[in-house]
Formats: sequence, structure tokens, C-alpha cells
Amino acid sequence: MSKTINDYNFDIVVIGAGHAGIEAGLAAAKMGLKTLVLAINLDTVGWAPCNPAVGGPAKGIVAREVDALGGQIAKTTDATMINVRMLNTSKGPAVRALRAQIDKHEYSMEMKRILESQENLFIRSGIASEILVENGKVTGVVTHFGVVYRCRAAVVTSGTFLRGKIFVGQKVFEAGRLGEFPAKALSQSLETLGFTLSRFKTGTPARIQGKSIDFSKMERQDTSDEPLAFSYFDEPRVLPKDYPCWLTHTNPSTHAVIRRDLKFSPLYGDVKLIQSIGPRYCPSIEDKVVKFSSKESHQVFVEPEGKNTDEYYLNGLSTSLPFETQVEMIRTVPGLENAVIVRPAYAVEYDYVTPDQLYPTLESKLVENLYFAGQVIGTSGYEEAAGLGIVAGINAAAKLLGMEQFVPKRSESYIGVMIDDLVTKGVDEPYRLLTSRAEYRLLIRHDNAHIRLSKYGYKYGLIPKWFYEKVLDLERQIEGEIERLNNVVVKPLSTLNNKLVAAGTSPIYQSTRLSQLLKRPQVSYEILKEFDPEPIEDLLLREQVEIQLKYEGYILRMEQELKRFERLEMEIIPPKVNYDEVPNLSTESREKLKKLRPRSIGQAMRIPGITPADIMNLSVYLKSLRNIGEGQKD
Amino acid sequence: MSKTINDYNFDIVVIGAGHAGIEAGLAAAKMGLKTLVLAINLDTVGWAPCNPAVGGPAKGIVAREVDALGGQIAKTTDATMINVRMLNTSKGPAVRALRAQIDKHEYSMEMKRILESQENLFIRSGIASEILVENGKVTGVVTHFGVVYRCRAAVVTSGTFLRGKIFVGQKVFEAGRLGEFPAKALSQSLETLGFTLSRFKTGTPARIQGKSIDFSKMERQDTSDEPLAFSYFDEPRVLPKDYPCWLTHTNPSTHAVIRRDLKFSPLYGDVKLIQSIGPRYCPSIEDKVVKFSSKESHQVFVEPEGKNTDEYYLNGLSTSLPFETQVEMIRTVPGLENAVIVRPAYAVEYDYVTPDQLYPTLESKLVENLYFAGQVIGTSGYEEAAGLGIVAGINAAAKLLGMEQFVPKRSESYIGVMIDDLVTKGVDEPYRLLTSRAEYRLLIRHDNAHIRLSKYGYKYGLIPKWFYEKVLDLERQIEGEIERLNNVVVKPLSTLNNKLVAAGTSPIYQSTRLSQLLKRPQVSYEILKEFDPEPIEDLLLREQVEIQLKYEGYILRMEQELKRFERLEMEIIPPKVNYDEVPNLSTESREKLKKLRPRSIGQAMRIPGITPADIMNLSVYLKSLRNIGEGQKD
Ligand SMILES: Cc1cc2nc3c(=O)[nH]c(=O)nc-3n(C[C@H](O)[C@H](O)[C@H](O)COP(=O)(O)OP(=O)(O)OC[C@H]3O[C@@H](n4cnc5c(N)ncnc54)[C@H](O)[C@@H]3O)c2cc1C
Ligand SMILES: Cc1cc2nc3c(=O)[nH]c(=O)nc-3n(C[C@H](O)[C@H](O)[C@H](O)COP(=O)(O)OP(=O)(O)OC[C@H]3O[C@@H](n4cnc5c(N)ncnc54)[C@H](O)[C@@H]3O)c2cc1C
Repeated sequence: MSKTINDYNFDIVVIGAGHAGIEAGLAAAKMGLKTLVLAINLDTVGWAPCNPAVGGPAKGIVAREVDALGGQIAKTTDATMINVRMLNTSKGPAVRALRAQIDKHEYSMEMKRILESQENLFIRSGIASEILVENGKVTGVVTHFGVVYRCRAAVVTSGTFLRGKIFVGQKVFEAGRLGEFPAKALSQSLETLGFTLSRFKTGTPARIQGKSIDFSKMERQDTSDEPLAFSYFDEPRVLPKDYPCWLTHTNPSTHAVIRRDLKFSPLYGDVKLIQSIGPRYCPSIEDKVVKFSSKESHQVFVEPEGKNTDEYYLNGLSTSLPFETQVEMIRTVPGLENAVIVRPAYAVEYDYVTPDQLYPTLESKLVENLYFAGQVIGTSGYEEAAGLGIVAGINAAAKLLGMEQFVPKRSESYIGVMIDDLVTKGVDEPYRLLTSRAEYRLLIRHDNAHIRLSKYGYKYGLIPKWFYEKVLDLERQIEGEIERLNNVVVKPLSTLNNKLVAAGTSPIYQSTRLSQLLKRPQVSYEILKEFDPEPIEDLLLREQVEIQLKYEGYILRMEQELKRFERLEMEIIPPKVNYDEVPNLSTESREKLKKLRPRSIGQAMRIPGITPADIMNLSVYLKSLRNIGEGQKD
Repeated sequence: MSKTINDYNFDIVVIGAGHAGIEAGLAAAKMGLKTLVLAINLDTVGWAPCNPAVGGPAKGIVAREVDALGGQIAKTTDATMINVRMLNTSKGPAVRALRAQIDKHEYSMEMKRILESQENLFIRSGIASEILVENGKVTGVVTHFGVVYRCRAAVVTSGTFLRGKIFVGQKVFEAGRLGEFPAKALSQSLETLGFTLSRFKTGTPARIQGKSIDFSKMERQDTSDEPLAFSYFDEPRVLPKDYPCWLTHTNPSTHAVIRRDLKFSPLYGDVKLIQSIGPRYCPSIEDKVVKFSSKESHQVFVEPEGKNTDEYYLNGLSTSLPFETQVEMIRTVPGLENAVIVRPAYAVEYDYVTPDQLYPTLESKLVENLYFAGQVIGTSGYEEAAGLGIVAGINAAAKLLGMEQFVPKRSESYIGVMIDDLVTKGVDEPYRLLTSRAEYRLLIRHDNAHIRLSKYGYKYGLIPKWFYEKVLDLERQIEGEIERLNNVVVKPLSTLNNKLVAAGTSPIYQSTRLSQLLKRPQVSYEILKEFDPEPIEDLLLREQVEIQLKYEGYILRMEQELKRFERLEMEIIPPKVNYDEVPNLSTESREKLKKLRPRSIGQAMRIPGITPADIMNLSVYLKSLRNIGEGQKD
């Protein structure tokens, strides 16, 4: 570095170095902006306070999407994973997803190292206590040391730390996570700025000492025999089988202990300490026992926390029951009869900023150039945080650079689905991505994230040109190969028919296009290869061609739907529209529209409670406005 | 593990997993006792909150002593060091000492792994809030989760956490260390039990991003070219030269910035936030500037924090001045002109238990079976903590096992010097070991820690038999070789005389004993080897023989002094002696003796303010008591 760095002047300050803050900070710095990343504790950068795992259904696809946009989560997962598997290989390509166990400490160290080595990026220990705003625009961030950082934009990614409280049975402590300070002043600052904060809770299971576990009573789950990688930029690898996961189950004795002690639960107990709502799709074991009372058994995955630790994570046994109950409950589970707890399970309750206060760019409606991402806007999960973080980072930087804002579409990414869900529908529980949330899930697959998104990564300077060109080339090849296969005709040879019958489908009796055969669910390209005069050798190309042909029907239907959908998305509602002037709206709908201020008719339609009649009225009103506008132009 | 572990019943509970707690816990568990180690944050086991280094003058010798007793600090240092040097090689063997930079994260992870793999040892996340005592004896420890652990002995090693407060300029926060919760309830519990707590402070410099440092302006200090190891159990290694340290200096501009901003210091400032005293031998840079105002420059060592981080430690620039002053001050130093701070320097103030409340076994006088070790008894430094920790762990276990207590002597170890200083003289600043504190420093060297102490390590079952036997064997060999060299006579051969002259000493003119020649400071055994009919090949043996012969005069004198000293140590003062009955004591001396209750006349003599006349009076009185006692026996 040649010239002296001004320590108090940044383009962008990112508050938080969790999964959201990392992506936001890296994106902004790569886009050339001087970026400061603040964290309460620099030894827990990119920390995994819950499962030591990245990926899984929908989430794994988001990790790939972040990668295609030029983010970090997939690469660091590749670098530190100890067990990885492709899930749902027997199901369709839409639900296929990678899931990896990571070495939690290595992951954190590696993320910190990446931040340290990023040009334009500065990381610093400090608790943001106030956001400075002048004329409705961010001008700075103050830390608890009293240091004032001037900046032109800020991204808040404070996770579970805002007025965080943790619960073990009836014991409550102020903490952002076990062993970490909460952030209290920042909540006040946000409230003073006019933001509405609400509270959510989430929980994590106990960590168990490995040497106290009897693995012989559990089912072993090894890492994949296939070479795998999360990132498009990494070589797929086969990992050593040194770190298996293990499957065991709860039973009626487990549930009896839980029921007996529910009275001590901070949620279900006689004294209700937690009123707020937790993630429905990561329920605590007491949630499961209460809500599915007839189920006699639940799965428990026992997962290693890393290579150099003997701690194991009990996936499925998240709880906020008292320590003594945890010990007793865990010991009813086969293989855990002598389990020794190293860290107790606990729940954490925290403030979040209700996401209806954000534009789909993740900028807040209230304060210009103030962006939010991650758990602080009501989500849950590392991948969700990473996906939101990279969008917030891109947009904060794009705003300052005068570039177009990035609003990923529902139809092209899970990230788009998530953001649209958040800002349109708001949240009434911690939001988690699920395959079922995506209408166009057959279009937004694990295998094609790069085809869908690398154009944006390239546009914002986050992925290299060679990669983007490789993707463009792949797209051209796919198109070319599909056209070619539409024209290659095979005769009903007995060699071919034998193969078809062996694959469980009917033989052909007349000349048929190869593309036609490939559409049969039972027929893979592998079978047809020898009958293709120009066989496709590139496996990635082959995969895309197969999927596109096989699911052509669905995909076509989806694309038509999508067109309709996008038309509605294109029907932009002027930001300053006066909803009081729209005739015939119900009071409730009028209030909702005034509060959320949807960008388009499409978005307005997805607001819960808005009726088709409301949309009609709004549409007619907007058209009348446009006519007046055009009339005036004349 | 075959039978179910009782989670609430332990023999020993160790509060803390720092350098003291680790050694205490390992020693107790190795001695067969079921031991629970509690820590506020399990991700900072064996943490290095100040320099990422182990060893140095006196401290390095303590690390060796802990090793000879069967402790862990030396082994983990060997496993994780990235740069190591033998200091003072040009000076005498008494001040020679190893110093190593460690990879701070690896060190912590490795220590946690060692704790995890130790049989009988359990580590658990939990903040001890109360010590339970019945009939003056420890019966349990309660944590903030409300869990009650029953135990028969406890060791408190809470470091800087008791009512910890950190300071950056005029900003104050409750914290045990930057980013870590303090322990408040435990202070109250100790006070309720009747302990006197006092306050000390200590400080640490900023951490700097490596890529902002211009190393070309600094002096490079590489790891040693000689193979080195801290532990007797490890093979000495030459480390790669990838992690040098760097030397630079402050200058009048640095000092001007400091003087200008002293008014904002929590110690020297207009508002004095810190009243307590810090370690004289690790002063802050403002201490140095104030106390040595004529000195225009101080050394600053720039040390890497580890292999996978870009953070550097500024050894010599500890401060509690405001962040803005830190930035400005650091940037006056050559090579740091553009330095970017990642973590600010800060001071921490904490409660300690005044060590006059302890027996030299480290058991408290007030509560039976309650032991203390480390920073919580007024010391400073990792090695000091480790040395105290292993003694406390051994003694807590020995007490429960009905074995003799271990009171290391001043004459045989730095650990003995330290404990005796602490319990006899008390402390008025954080206690640090220095070579000058040891009267018998020529006896308690780096090179002979095993000869001095492995008998105790073996006695308490902490080192293996083969090692102890090897040491015994070495001792026999040394004795044998010295005797032999006393009898080997060399003629005044010209080959020999040439060598002697070349070494800078006079030739001999008549037959001379080899032992006689070896006593000359200029003559090494290497020179004499070819004239020895049975040359000593074993390098360790040779080192001992050389040192013992060369320093025979000093050593003999010391040993005589020691005999006198030990006679006084053997003059035991009965624990229940009534000082009010001793005639002619000054009121002040009487009060001191009543408070400290020394074990022996030797210890009484070292109490500051006790005069020779007091000792005479006490001695006479004790003799009279004995006479009466003997009279009664008849
Ligand atoms: C107990 C627990 C249980 C969980 N359970 C689940 C689960 O079951 N399923 C699931 O998917 N996810 C779960 N998670 C959530 C998952 O960990 C988070 O969603 C994810 O880590 C969110 O990433 P983030 O970047 O938004 O925030 P975090 O990873 O929480 O990072 C927040 C960052 O902000 C920093 N910060 C906060 N406030 C300030 C401030 N004022 N100034 C400076 N820095 C600040 C922190 O130091 C930290 O670096 C759980 C988390 C916890 C703590
Ligand atoms: C800011 C700072 C500056 C320092 N500067 C120097 C220096 O210049 N020179 C020097 O030699 N040394 C310095 N040190 C001191 C050195 O770090 C300590 O002396 C050494 O770490 C002491 O080891 P310990 O085991 O006594 O305590 P620590 O290493 O502090 O460990 C204490 C342990 O106790 C645990 N604990 C505390 N209270 C509780 C409780 N109630 N329940 C459960 N667990 C508890 C903590 O979690 C931790 O595991 C500094 C330390 C700090 C924090």
C-alpha cells in the first residue's frame, strides 16, 4: 500500500461478519469500494452456531447461486468440508442438492483469511452502536469505542445479536450466541430511526463428546464416492471416509422425559419466557413432540464438528429445556446412553427488522443507502444469509457507483424467491428456503445456477471474464446439441432395442429421433451414446442437454407461466402512487398497499390478503393515470 | 465407556480452561480423579490474549519445569510453534531460555483436543457462579445455568475474568477479555466466603493487518537454525523460515502523540478510570514514556499471530489510549506508516485473590480443598499460570488421594520461587517471574529441569516410568563422568596447547586433569574430546557435565547457602501457634505473622518488614514450646 489509509472514512460499512456480512463485504470490496467489516468478535467470522453443515434441499442451490454470482460460501465449503453428499439423486433434478459437513473452525479461519486478503476490505473488531443519518441518507456508523466511521452506505447483517437473549430452561442471559456479547445499542439506534423491530427465536442442540458415544448402535453415513464440489471454480474431489455422520432415533422414553419437563420450558412452561416464534422447519424436539404427538420416533443425525475436535452435533435434538432434562433426554437415545454434554442446547431470542421495510434491492425504505441482509431481516440459515448478503453488498456498491440495482427474479433464482417472499409477504416465523417455495423450481436447479446467474456476477465484476465466456459457450453448445439431437434419427436396430428393453422401456419399430428417445424417463444418454454419430463427451454439457430434453414439457409450461408472470412484474406501480385515490379498495387492502408499496402489479398480487378485485381496481386506476399522463404530454 | 457417567458428581471441579486451568485439570485427571473443567467460552481454551508466544527468560524455564512435572504447555508449544529461538546463548547457562511464537489458534485447538482426549476429564461450557462450602470444606460449584456440581475439591483459575472491565481510552465495558463475558457472580461468592479481593490491570497492544505493514523497514528475526524443542518428550526440530518476527522502534514523534493524548488515558488522564496497578515488567507504552521520559526510543517487535491469519501483534506497544490515538501513534513507527488496526489495544482490570490467603500448596487458608492458580492470584503470564496450575492440580488431587502435598522449593524451581514469593510476600503489582527473583538461578536452569523435577512428576503419576528412569540414569552418568574426568590426566602435548591457545586461554606446562581444563570458561569439551580416552558422545550428558564442572565453584557456594536456607525451611512453625504469646514482637510484625501464618522460620524471614530480632524472638519461643512438648512426652 502506498498511501496512508484514512481509518475513519469508508464507502461502505458492513455491520457483521457472519454469512451475510462476509458476502456483502466481499462483493462491495471487489466492486472497488473501500469497505469496512465490523464484528463483535473477530474470532467467530463466518461462524456456524448451529449445524456444522452447508447445503441441503434449496439451501445447497442457494450456495451454488451465490457462487455463480461470484460469492464465497461455496468455495470455502469446498476447502473445509469433511463429508459431502448429493441428496435426492433418485428424485428429479429440481430437488437434487449438495450437502456438506464442514470443519467449523477451519471454515471460520478460512473465511477470516479470505476477508483479510481481499483488497479494499478492512475488518475490525467493534460493536456498531449507532447509524448516522443525514437528510434521510446514511452518513456513518459509530462503534461502542466511540469511533465514528463516515460512510456513504451501510449494510446491517447483525444475525441473532440485536438485543439477543439466550435461554436454557428458565435461565435467561443477555447474549448474541452462547459466549458472545449481544448488540443492544444498535437496536435502539434503528428504533430511533423509525424502524419497526420484532422478535424471533431459534435454537440449537447440545454438543456431545465423541468418546462418550456408542456409534455401533447408529447407522453410518459416509461421504460420497463420487467426486463433488460446491463451487464452479473448484475441482470436484472424493473426500477420505474419516468423518462419517451417524443416524439414530428418539423413542417413547425420550418423549416421556420431554413431556414430563415441558413445564420448565421457556416456551411451553408454566412461566412463558419466550413469546416469539421459532423456525417451523427447524423445530425443537419439544416442538416436534407437542405438535406431532402421535409420532413415536424422530431422526437424530450425529454430526462431527470438525477434524480437530471431539465434539458432535445432535441434529434433530434442538431444545431449550433445562440442562438436567437435556442430559436425561439425550441418554434415552440409542448410542447416546452415556453421552456427555460439552455445551448445552439453548434457544436465542433476538430483534429483527421486519422485511416489509425493505425494497427488493434490500435497501430500506426509511433510510437511503442503508441495506439489510441475513438473519436480521427475519430469515434463518447460513445459505439464506449468504444469498441475501451478496445481493445487499452488490446493491450498496452499485448504488454508490451509479450502476443499476440488482433485483434477482423469482423465476431465475432461489435468492429471488426469497427476497420477493420477504419484502412482499413479510414473515411471521424465521424464513427458511424450501424447494416448495419456488414456483419455477424445475428452472432453478442445482445444475444450472451458473447458466442462470453468472451474467449478473460478470456484470457487477464479481466473476472473471473467462468463466462468463465459458458459460455463454456452454449455453450455445446446449442449444446446438439439442438441435442436432432433434435431427439425428436412429433405426430400430436390435442392439438399440435390447438396450431400451433392458432399461425398462419399450423398443422402437420405426426410425426415431434421438431427442425423442431421450425424453423417455428411463433412457439416459449413456444408453444412446453409441448410436449418436457425434457423441457428447463433455459430462456437464451432456447433463444439461439431457435435463432440458427430458423435462422439455414441464419447462415449456413453466416458461409460459413465467411470461404471464413477468408481464405482471413489468407493470410497474409508480413509487409515489396515492393509494387513497384508488377507488373501491377495502380499508385493509389500502393499508397493506400503503405500507408495503409494491413495485409492480405482480408483487402486489402476492401480498397476502390482497384480492383479485383489489388488483383489478388498482390496474384500472393506474391505466387511467397513464392515460392522463399521456394526455398531458400531447 | 461402559457405565453411565454421573454428570453432577465430580472429584474435582476446575473453574477455567486457560493456561492454569488446563494444567490443573490434566494433572488431576491423570492422577485418576474425575475432573470437570468449566469455561465461559470453550472456543478460547488455552487462549493467548496477549503475545502469541511462550517462553523467554525465566518463563521459558518454567515451561520446561511444567514439562518435567508431566504438564502440557511445552508439548503444545512444540506442536504449534512457528518461530523459535534460544535466547542469551552468549550469556551463562542460568539465563539461557527458549522463546517460541505459537500459532495462537492452533495452540488453542490443540489444547482443547488434549483436554477432550484425557481420560477422567470432562470439559463443559458454563460460568461458575458460586462455590458451595460446608463445614469449611468445598462441596460443590454452581453454574449460571443453575446446575449444581458436587465435588470434593475445586481449583479456581479464572484469569482476568472476575468482574473484568476493559478500557479503550475513556470507554469502559464489562468484559473478561475483548469479546468475552466477565464473571461477576463468582467474585461475590468468594467475598461471601470471606476472601479478600483486590484489583489489578493489564493491557495488550493492537493487532495490525500484515498487508498494511512495510517490513522492509524492519529488522528480520528468523527462527533458529538449530533444532529446538521445549519438551523433553519431543524431538527437536528446525522450523521453516516462513514466519519471521520483525523489530522496529518508537521515536520522539511516537512519544509526542502519546504525551499529547495522555489526558485521555484511563490511567493518566483527567478522569482516572483505572486506579489499580499493572505489571511493571510488561508496561504500556504510555508507562514507558512517562517513567523513562528521557528515552527517545523503545523496541517494538512485530510478531505473526499464526499461519492462517494476517494479524500481527505489536509487542511493546501495549496501551489503553483511545483508538484514534492508537492509530496516530502506531503510524509514527517505521514500517507502520500505513498500519491498519484490526483489533484495538486495550487494558483489562479484574479482581484477584490476594495470595497471602493461600498456603504454599495453593490451597486457601479459609476454605479447605479450595485451590487457586494463575492470574487470579495476582500473577501475569501464561507460563506462570501453567506452573501454578499444575501445582494446584497435583495438590487438589493429592489431598483427595491422601498423598503428600507438593510444595516445590525455591532452590529447585522457578515455580517454587514464584509460589514462595506469592504466599510470603504477597503482591503489589501483577507478579511476573524474572531470573533475578531466583537466588539459586545457577541451580535452576533451562537445561536441568528434568533432573530437578521429574522425581515429582513420577511420584504423582504424571510422567512415565521410562522417562524417570532415563533421568536417574542420566544423573548417575553425570556423576560417573565427572568423577572419571577428575581422574583423566592429559600431558602438555603441543596439539592440545595449540587448541587451548586458539581458544584464547593459556597453554599447560604440566600434566593436568581434564576436569581442571574444562573449568576454564574458554574451554569446551569439544576441544578436549580427542584427548579423552573415553569421549562422551551423548550431547545432553556432555552439556550437564560441562556446566557442572564449569560452574562448580558457584554451584558449591550456592549449595552451601541452600543448606543453611533449608535448615530454616525445616524449622516448622506449628500451624496453630499463638503469636500473641510470643514475647517482644512489634505490633506490626505480630499482625503480619498472624495474617500470613508462615509454615517455617525460613518463610517467616522472607516476610517483608519482619526483622532479624523478630525471628530470634520467634525462634526462642518455639524452642521453648518444643521443650515443653518434649517435657510432656516424658
Ligand atoms: C442458537 C442458534 C441456532 C440456530 N439454529 C438454526 C437452525 O436451526 N437452522 C438454520 O438454518 N439456522 C440456524 N441458526 C441461524 C444461522 O446461524 C444464521 O441464520 C446465520 O448464521 C445467519 O447469518 P448472519 O450473517 O445473518 O448472522 P450471524 O452469522 O449471526 O452473524 C452476525 C454477525 O454480526 C456481528 N454483529 C452483530 N451485531 C453487531 C454490531 N452491533 N456491531 C458489529 N457487529 C455485529 C456478529 O459479531 C457476527 O459477526 C441458528 C443460530 C443460532 C445462534
Ligand atoms: C488484555 C490482556 C493483556 C495481557 N497482557 C499480558 C502481558 O503483558 N504479559 C503477560 O505475561 N501476560 C499478560 N496477560 C496475561 C495472560 O494472558 C494471563 O496471565 C494468562 O492467560 C493467565 O492464565 P490463566 O489460566 O490464569 O487465565 P486465563 O488464560 O485468563 O483463563 C481464564 C479461564 O477461566 C475461565 N473462567 C473465568 N471465570 C470463570 C467462571 N466463573 N466460570 C468458568 N470459567 C471461568 C475463562 O473462560 C478462561 O477459560 C494479558 C491478558 C490479557 C487479557
